[in-house]
Amino acid sequence: MSILISLVAFAFAAWLYLWVKRQPAQNQRIEQVSLLIRLGARTFLRKEYGVLARFASVAALLILLFLPAPIWKGNFTDNVIMAVAYLAGTLFSAIAGKIGIEIATIANGRCAEAAQKGIKPSFMVGFRGGAVMGMAVVGASLLGVALVYLITGDGTAILGFSFGASSLALFAKAGGGIFTKTADISADLTGKVELGIPEDDPRNPAVIADNVGDNVGDVAGMGADLFDSNVASMAAALVMAGSLDLRYGGTSHVATVFCYAALGLLASVIGVMTARIGKKGNPTRALNMSTYVTTAVYVALTAVVTALANLEWRIWGACIVGLLVGVVIGIATDYFTDDSKKPVHFVAGASKSGPAFTILSGISYGFLSTLPAMIGIGISALAAYKLCEPIDPANSLEYAMFGISMAAVGMLSIVGMIVSNDAYGPIVDNARGLAEMGSLGDDVLEITDELDSAGNTVKAVTKGFAIAAAGLTVIALLGAFMSEVNSAASSLGLPGLTGFDVMNPLVFFGMLVGAAIPAVFSAMLMLGVDRNAQRMVAEIHRQFREIVGLREGKAEPEYNKCIDIATAGAIRELIPAGLMAIVATIGVGFIGGVEAIGGFLTGNIVSGLLLALFMSNSGGLWDNAKKYVESGHEGGKGSDAHKAAVVGDTVGDPFKDTAGPSINTQITVISLVSSLLSVLFLTYSLF
Amino acid sequence: MSILISLVAFAFAAWLYLWVKRQPAQNQRIEQVSLLIRLGARTFLRKEYGVLARFASVAALLILLFLPAPIWKGNFTDNVIMAVAYLAGTLFSAIAGKIGIEIATIANGRCAEAAQKGIKPSFMVGFRGGAVMGMAVVGASLLGVALVYLITGDGTAILGFSFGASSLALFAKAGGGIFTKTADISADLTGKVELGIPEDDPRNPAVIADNVGDNVGDVAGMGADLFDSNVASMAAALVMAGSLDLRYGGTSHVATVFCYAALGLLASVIGVMTARIGKKGNPTRALNMSTYVTTAVYVALTAVVTALANLEWRIWGACIVGLLVGVVIGIATDYFTDDSKKPVHFVAGASKSGPAFTILSGISYGFLSTLPAMIGIGISALAAYKLCEPIDPANSLEYAMFGISMAAVGMLSIVGMIVSNDAYGPIVDNARGLAEMGSLGDDVLEITDELDSAGNTVKAVTKGFAIAAAGLTVIALLGAFMSEVNSAASSLGLPGLTGFDVMNPLVFFGMLVGAAIPAVFSAMLMLGVDRNAQRMVAEIHRQFREIVGLREGKAEPEYNKCIDIATAGAIRELIPAGLMAIVATIGVGFIGGVEAIGGFLTGNIVSGLLLALFMSNSGGLWDNAKKYVESGHEGGKGSDAHKAAVVGDTVGDPFKDTAGPSINTQITVISLVSSLLSVLFLTYSLF
Repeated sequence: MSILISLVAFAFAAWLYLWVKRQPAQNQRIEQVSLLIRLGARTFLRKEYGVLARFASVAALLILLFLPAPIWKGNFTDNVIMAVAYLAGTLFSAIAGKIGIEIATIANGRCAEAAQKGIKPSFMVGFRGGAVMGMAVVGASLLGVALVYLITGDGTAILGFSFGASSLALFAKAGGGIFTKTADISADLTGKVELGIPEDDPRNPAVIADNVGDNVGDVAGMGADLFDSNVASMAAALVMAGSLDLRYGGTSHVATVFCYAALGLLASVIGVMTARIGKKGNPTRALNMSTYVTTAVYVALTAVVTALANLEWRIWGACIVGLLVGVVIGIATDYFTDDSKKPVHFVAGASKSGPAFTILSGISYGFLSTLPAMIGIGISALAAYKLCEPIDPANSLEYAMFGISMAAVGMLSIVGMIVSNDAYGPIVDNARGLAEMGSLGDDVLEITDELDSAGNTVKAVTKGFAIAAAGLTVIALLGAFMSEVNSAASSLGLPGLTGFDVMNPLVFFGMLVGAAIPAVFSAMLMLGVDRNAQRMVAEIHRQFREIVGLREGKAEPEYNKCIDIATAGAIRELIPAGLMAIVATIGVGFIGGVEAIGGFLTGNIVSGLLLALFMSNSGGLWDNAKKYVESGHEGGKGSDAHKAAVVGDTVGDPFKDTAGPSINTQITVISLVSSLLSVLFLTYSLF
Repeated sequence: MSILISLVAFAFAAWLYLWVKRQPAQNQRIEQVSLLIRLGARTFLRKEYGVLARFASVAALLILLFLPAPIWKGNFTDNVIMAVAYLAGTLFSAIAGKIGIEIATIANGRCAEAAQKGIKPSFMVGFRGGAVMGMAVVGASLLGVALVYLITGDGTAILGFSFGASSLALFAKAGGGIFTKTADISADLTGKVELGIPEDDPRNPAVIADNVGDNVGDVAGMGADLFDSNVASMAAALVMAGSLDLRYGGTSHVATVFCYAALGLLASVIGVMTARIGKKGNPTRALNMSTYVTTAVYVALTAVVTALANLEWRIWGACIVGLLVGVVIGIATDYFTDDSKKPVHFVAGASKSGPAFTILSGISYGFLSTLPAMIGIGISALAAYKLCEPIDPANSLEYAMFGISMAAVGMLSIVGMIVSNDAYGPIVDNARGLAEMGSLGDDVLEITDELDSAGNTVKAVTKGFAIAAAGLTVIALLGAFMSEVNSAASSLGLPGLTGFDVMNPLVFFGMLVGAAIPAVFSAMLMLGVDRNAQRMVAEIHRQFREIVGLREGKAEPEYNKCIDIATAGAIRELIPAGLMAIVATIGVGFIGGVEAIGGFLTGNIVSGLLLALFMSNSGGLWDNAKKYVESGHEGGKGSDAHKAAVVGDTVGDPFKDTAGPSINTQITVISLVSSLLSVLFLTYSLF
């Protein structure tokens, strides 16, 4: 059934794709630049997927040799299945990303041109373009998980699939994040600061890379990130559902997971179809409304199915708690980044005293913003646990952990809608630039500006949502890790775990080290952006020096050179950060064994969530504070407050687009590495 | 014996005090300003202690009513003892702080004048002035703990004493931190930026407040902080030693704690006495050497005593592991803030691209700097645990936790030396300003500059040390909390705890909330500095407007008004932050009971250490990067890189002097609140 529904999603995505393609594309200049962006994005993806293919081959080989058990000790077939599942995970995510990038770089130009006919058609192009990515992501994740389960019938193989998705997400999100900020910062530093030419000026060799960056960071990166979270939440739920099914016989728990996940996809399809905007309508409201519609449809659909199929209401409750808390966290996040609320006004006002105060106040509000989400994640985990604990007193812990994983599934049920809204952002952002380059006039620019601003607002909400969903997912993965350790321990005749006690010094040791990893990972990414931007600035200087007539606009810059540098640099800077996290996991595991890893994951989750929320929210806050000043407040454009706000925005860029959202992926990757290596840590460890 | 040794410390402190007082003080202008600073510091202390007295009375009343058990259910005498112990804790710490402030504000002028005779006598005045504070802190903490134990014979009463010390530390450290940065920022904003008059210009009404701030922040604040950590580490060790003594009979474990703590004091006395600097010597080396001498003396002394008194070598080992790891963490911290190392050079270089890059690179290195300390704290806890676990297989967990608490005692054994080095900083910093105001000439300024720079370098090391010590202490306090819960549970006939399992959703819920608290606490303090500085800037503007002849230097500004504003504002801004932390603890405790509190403390420790290390280190890094640029690198003073570096320094100021080091105290306070309220949480909780 899940496979059927995922095919529905693909069919719907194809219909949306064709609909977008049918929209008129007549402006030559726009089509030309749009094509340049498309080609640039393809270059990035080709190179990234090339490196990833090598990386994945090595990882698959290692899996084949060692996982789930060393090949000389375990079952050869299991290892082959795991390696194949891993590769399938990377492949499915890659395909979804590729589809999203293609449509986004087609929709951007058409969205700009549609704006000539008004905000309504333009919004539809942008939204439906984004929805293609949304549908592709949920369709591919559900299809992949369902296929792997159908073929292997094994929860552990799905962890392999999930690890594949995480590997790709690490490249797409962190690599894309480095790419986009490299291009953004270099373009600004050379163009606006040194040469005094406007943003998006085609003479700047970095301008296409900058536009490509929006797509690879927000479309491909965010898509891969949520693909990853979605698969991981299903994987965690399926591992636990599988072990419950083993106890009770039958497949009812696994079926429940697939059922609720598939209904989420259906709800997202309905949400996308019903999204409308009035002729003079408000695009932010339209986007948010579609999220609420999806949520309501999901609650109704699952309630009906739960009643008809006589499923367990407590599990349904856990699912709904997760979803509602996700929505609430999104709204709370919005408060800290919305330009009509106090934090943005305060930071804008503080900017009058200079950039130091922009930074201090932004960091302060960023710190404050972590509280509602941390409490929310904690409460939803607690509520789901307590709801599901009493289902069967004989297996209360198992049901309770299953409840948490179902809360994560519930929170991610509307992921199709979330990805759609998120991918809408870069499309309309690009459309704005294209409208300017295509000289479509001020009326059109006003429309695209409004669409763009809606994209930015909604983006803050979806980011909060993505982090919260990842948080709940990794808590569920912690349960999956324990489940894996215990099944491995029982097969090896070793004592199992009942939990991870913080009074155990191995757990505490792991926790302290694990807590430092997200900070180190973020630092490496941010320093990577810095180094990469320096390389790109050098290349831009070279082009202006060597290409005759470039400054006067008589010669074309070599856009591709900049894209190549951003791409190569992104991958070069990303790999050490990713390896650091994995090596730390392996190191802690071989030193302290599975108990230290339990602590390591816990510390990593706790500090990772905190830093991810802090960085994403303060970044969004600075961005909006700058825009707020630019719209004429606190002195407006060109004032000292504006200069200070620009400093805040520049600091916030790698915060919100590189480091912050990559931490999710880092947490998921090491959670999965830990689960996959649990047998090894159990067998070989110093303590 | 401990009481005797603590009296030795006081005698030594008195001798040092008189020695400093005997030094010549002939320059009228210097003595006048020095007196102003002294009076200002007294104003702050009087006001602060006044508020504290009211706060402490309320707290003591609550303790009398509710702790250790509600008065209508428990033993009346126990509650009286607890309340008195609490008040004694605030009093002993307050006295040590008062002594330190008095001597520091006497030594500053004499240090400046001694510089006329060369660096050697000047260094000695500064160092011995600081040592008075060091000796007062260790003497008072050892004496207080010993007296409370002698009178009550009860570990829980020492928790009360420790809570008193923490209350004071919260006021002194966080309040002093707000005070000092309020004054610093306001003085800079109005003086240097608006009026264009130099730093330390006597026409600026905020200048005395600024100098007072150095003393209340670094002398009284840091002293109270380390007093607090020192008492807390002894309290944790004594609670566990007491329960071990109960099992085995006798008092050998308690005696061991006092013995090792007292030897630390002796070692510090020897370290202070042997500190020397050659005629052309290097003050940084002299300061660091005195730390190493103290460490070596401590290792030797304890080894001899352990051999002679036939104590347990494993416990000695735990103690030494703690100490050595503390020293290593100090050295690792130094790498990230030392102006001859890569991080400072990198940040200074990045400043050429503008303030955003100063901030980004500083934050990145600040993040990186957390790793060695987190690993170090983890390893020392793990090593101490594993060392002491086998002492008696029948009580392995008790001995293991006792080992961790002894590692904290070991790390804090050289606290007398650390406080001495730390208090040296503001004395020579003030001396530099006084030398300028007293027109002592360039040769003298060169000497005081060198002494000041040594103070800054050593400060970074002592801050890292203080955070690490607090980290280990609070881990030990977590053990003390469990110990308290279990003894309360057994007396109530409830089941006890064996630990805090992160798979328990109550623990996890607590952990997520607890992790957010240090972020919220820091944000509230930083926003408080901001609001307070605005009030003070308004006052400075008023004085320049209303006092005729002030601008021309013909009239005296009203220095005391500024001090009053900084003082009142500091307390006003501090109280909500402190209450927030305490209310959150009580809220989580009544919702989730002792298990949620276990998680809450764990999350608080982990994220608190991370943020404290990050903020202290990046703040120190920016400070030194600015000084590095000012010394002629990357364009030198007045260049764009310098402007950017100043922005970094301004952001770093509240990081390193307000929020970062206050987090320690916040953690200790809520750890103690939790231990003290454990009976209530055990009896009344929602889940």
